[in-house]
Amino acid sequence: MSAAARARRLSESAEIVVLEQSPYVSFANCGLPYHLSGEIADRDDLLLHTPVSLRAALNLDVRTGHRAAAIDRAARTVTVATADGAYALPYDALLLAPGAVAVRPPIDGLDHPAVHALRTVPDVDALRDRVDQALARATGTCPPRAVVVGAGFIGLEAVEALVARGFEVDLVELADHVLPPLDAELAPLLADELLAHGVALHLGVSATSVVDASPAATSVADAFPAATSVVDALPTATSVPSGAAGTDRATSASSASGPADAPAGQVTVTLSDGTALDADLVVVNVGVRPASDLARDAGLDLGARGAIRVDADHRTSDPHIWAVGDAIEVRQAVTGDAGPVPLAGPANRQGRRAAESMLGHRTTPQAAVLGTAIVRVFGLTAAVTGASQATLVRAGIEHEVVHLHPNHHAGYYPGASAVHLVASFAPDGRLLGAQAVGREGVDKRIDVLATALRAGMTADDLAELELAYAPPYGSAKDPVNMLGFVAQNALDGTMPQWQATDLSDAMESTLILDVRSAKERAAAHLPGSLHVPHTELRDRLDEVRTAADGRPISVHCASGVRSYLATRILRGVGLDARNLSGGWQTLQAVHPSLSA
Amino acid sequence: MSAAARARRLSESAEIVVLEQSPYVSFANCGLPYHLSGEIADRDDLLLHTPVSLRAALNLDVRTGHRAAAIDRAARTVTVATADGAYALPYDALLLAPGAVAVRPPIDGLDHPAVHALRTVPDVDALRDRVDQALARATGTCPPRAVVVGAGFIGLEAVEALVARGFEVDLVELADHVLPPLDAELAPLLADELLAHGVALHLGVSATSVVDASPAATSVADAFPAATSVVDALPTATSVPSGAAGTDRATSASSASGPADAPAGQVTVTLSDGTALDADLVVVNVGVRPASDLARDAGLDLGARGAIRVDADHRTSDPHIWAVGDAIEVRQAVTGDAGPVPLAGPANRQGRRAAESMLGHRTTPQAAVLGTAIVRVFGLTAAVTGASQATLVRAGIEHEVVHLHPNHHAGYYPGASAVHLVASFAPDGRLLGAQAVGREGVDKRIDVLATALRAGMTADDLAELELAYAPPYGSAKDPVNMLGFVAQNALDGTMPQWQATDLSDAMESTLILDVRSAKERAAAHLPGSLHVPHTELRDRLDEVRTAADGRPISVHCASGVRSYLATRILRGVGLDARNLSGGWQTLQAVHPSLSA
Repeated sequence: MSAAARARRLSESAEIVVLEQSPYVSFANCGLPYHLSGEIADRDDLLLHTPVSLRAALNLDVRTGHRAAAIDRAARTVTVATADGAYALPYDALLLAPGAVAVRPPIDGLDHPAVHALRTVPDVDALRDRVDQALARATGTCPPRAVVVGAGFIGLEAVEALVARGFEVDLVELADHVLPPLDAELAPLLADELLAHGVALHLGVSATSVVDASPAATSVADAFPAATSVVDALPTATSVPSGAAGTDRATSASSASGPADAPAGQVTVTLSDGTALDADLVVVNVGVRPASDLARDAGLDLGARGAIRVDADHRTSDPHIWAVGDAIEVRQAVTGDAGPVPLAGPANRQGRRAAESMLGHRTTPQAAVLGTAIVRVFGLTAAVTGASQATLVRAGIEHEVVHLHPNHHAGYYPGASAVHLVASFAPDGRLLGAQAVGREGVDKRIDVLATALRAGMTADDLAELELAYAPPYGSAKDPVNMLGFVAQNALDGTMPQWQATDLSDAMESTLILDVRSAKERAAAHLPGSLHVPHTELRDRLDEVRTAADGRPISVHCASGVRSYLATRILRGVGLDARNLSGGWQTLQAVHPSLSA
Repeated sequence: MSAAARARRLSESAEIVVLEQSPYVSFANCGLPYHLSGEIADRDDLLLHTPVSLRAALNLDVRTGHRAAAIDRAARTVTVATADGAYALPYDALLLAPGAVAVRPPIDGLDHPAVHALRTVPDVDALRDRVDQALARATGTCPPRAVVVGAGFIGLEAVEALVARGFEVDLVELADHVLPPLDAELAPLLADELLAHGVALHLGVSATSVVDASPAATSVADAFPAATSVVDALPTATSVPSGAAGTDRATSASSASGPADAPAGQVTVTLSDGTALDADLVVVNVGVRPASDLARDAGLDLGARGAIRVDADHRTSDPHIWAVGDAIEVRQAVTGDAGPVPLAGPANRQGRRAAESMLGHRTTPQAAVLGTAIVRVFGLTAAVTGASQATLVRAGIEHEVVHLHPNHHAGYYPGASAVHLVASFAPDGRLLGAQAVGREGVDKRIDVLATALRAGMTADDLAELELAYAPPYGSAKDPVNMLGFVAQNALDGTMPQWQATDLSDAMESTLILDVRSAKERAAAHLPGSLHVPHTELRDRLDEVRTAADGRPISVHCASGVRSYLATRILRGVGLDARNLSGGWQTLQAVHPSLSA
């Protein structure tokens, strides 16, 4: 719809047809979990436009229930399948915005009617029906139960929504931490928040089967199109002069569920570690893949992971065909890797740009995709932009990581809470990626860092950013400035770092120096570490020197601030000291056994 | 303190002395209004450090009650005045961080004990005492009353605090709108918020006298140092190896109030328009000027408006003396003007950089100051970065202004509220400045725009920013992206604009076309305008063409969105149409008589 709308604004005379196989155009994909939770009470609020409103405002010919079944590139026609038969639609310029389809995980019983996806309006309708049925059956001693498979962005939103509806939720994730795009040392903050809300976590395992727990089982294929039926079930295809699928954060319309069948009561979900979980319903979100079958069948070039290959203006290998959204291959910033990135923001702008190209308007080349994303998990927010540490390691890109836990606004103003920040920098200081988790101010810092990343800013630049400060909003030294300061010190040798992941090496071959207070140390500390509170360090240098006995000194405090001062004192007298990035807070996240 | 702390971290061996004439170092200037309101209940929370804590953590020699009275540059000594006499302190490197002093407005009776400043801890102590006395005297029929002179950032914070304490407040501002740095079309939003909280506004007038309303008047010079005493009362001077005044948002410690004298009861404040206002207390904040007398007396070069001239490393005209903070001349971004900019963020970073320079550490040159600032006014937030329209006009810099009123997060998610955005762009698309007012999400957008401004981004770059989107946080097309889209269209001719300030010209020589709904039009509309709802426009083109009769067509709706569509329709059929930037919302702010 972004492309179709922009096309009309650029050309009053173009004939613009939008083909959509489902009954809905331009619905709020990203709002679905909030309709499930009831926060968005009115289902109509999800439906941003209708064919009638789009005709009135933009003179668009929107045809819902019309599926693009094939493209005849030589004849420049699209074969359109409808309930009443097929017809050929000619085009001068064709835009493909088919989105993605849900990946079908290898779970026996995936087609059980208790198993739901959460990607389309029919999906959420079916899921809400099932939730209502489970609530009607539930009793105080036997609350409704759900299993959510996949702890990605949408999976976490589904968990939050189901807890809000009174469900006890088991969350199953194959990776070893929730929200796999998040770096490992931030994920435990989310895990703690989930546990605090009664969610049971099953990490590092997969679901293997869903079987009916009621005596008379029923089973109807439903939420996930079988692999062989994907081409026929191609969720959204659009033809033009212009036209694009309604696009929101997770952009594609897909995996249309059938009607909710008769309630089959509870199911049992078995996990790969043998755990058996009873549930009234199962929500499965384990990722998507480009819905590129129509393009492939038409002989268009595909790229990495089956995504449609396009140029900077989103033109495919056929000069009369453009493509946008979750189905296309984009270049990822930082790594330069090519692949699909299913995000609403880039998809919207791609639609706009493709329309400009189709209509001969000025275009600006698409920037590489940063992968900026955010999710609310109860009281916490987690957000990412650019490359994660895992991505950098995989790509073999050298980087220095810094961890901070600054307050989201001035500490002396009531209500300050920590923003847990992780960022990676190239040796030359260039920002490569950043992630944050916290209760307040996370979205702001990640948006600033996404902007800095797009601008190619360095640690020096972050240090010098001039952000808005009054006590309710920030600090004179904003967390983003602090990130710059710390990275400057780490990169220019003022403050060499050690990382929580280096712990066993550090314990083996260096002196661990704990500069926290006696009270903090009493709660938990590393065996064999020397304890000298940072304010006593200048008077006890001989003691430290003797204990180090020529070895490097690995300093830590709770967050990395006092140990930075201590590191500078030690280096100032010629000792080889280094500071634990993120302090005990980060150490404990990486080594949960230390919490005990 | 930023400089002193950084100096210690860079050199364990330096002897670092900090001179501070007041009893306090490193206090939270920006927190003072929130201590007045009671939000920061504990006065100790304002005192971030003490000489004892600074000795323990950083081995600093902090001397409070010690005033730098003179500099002997040849001998490299500072004459330090104390209660017990004077002494000479030698230095290798000297840092001046004296801050600013409050401007003394020409008000008869300014020295009355009912008149208060709000820049130091003693100021807020005295003001809280006076507030308590007034509350004790007040009755239900005769509530406590305050007059606040100056509607800048701190003045507005003082108003909010006094209303929170139960005062009826009159706010007096010489400019024709509150928060003079804000552009005229955004200020009415703040004015409405102030009025809604019972604040009486007196705009375009000054206070001329304060006289005792009680029978036996007392008068003791107090909150504002008389012009002739400024040198002696120099608020903060620091000497080095390193040293800097504690610095927070409004950085200088100044205008030390004496003790609160015996309550003199009410005063009468007379305004330049003859209005007489009774009040229990008066708070005056009409700006500051650099406290550069010590530097001037030492023969250091001063620049614009008496600010100390420094190089990129903050070195003054004497190679052994550095200067930072509210007292120095900085280059302002966008205009390139030189002058003092009293803001905490830049001052903190200046201190850090000066210490690096003094200690021979790597420095990065100071970036030009953007003037990013923010204030909370009850439920609203107002924030600015870069050049305002008024500044651009004054500097003769060509620019295109765009006005938007997008939701702070997805409209379909509950609680969406408008961010009123104004931004200026150079003809080549470069962002020059941005301002915003709204209930939520204002700080985030201004911080992103401040980052974009620092990076030299253009409208094309803003359009392509990839910001974090989930329904509780933003939109797939964030307000900052929308700013880019609208500016692109305005600058490349896709959507020529007209401005609310062009109204009389537009009414005289063009057809005004109102494309709002009939219901919206019924509430208020421009006389002589043609009404065609935007969804009817394609069917009523002949009517518009006839009414225009060859004249340009000035289209408007409520916010600028529907009128953009209409502008494109009209231009698509060859008519000379242009869109009202910001729509009726902005028109009404600029022409308040239209609200009637």
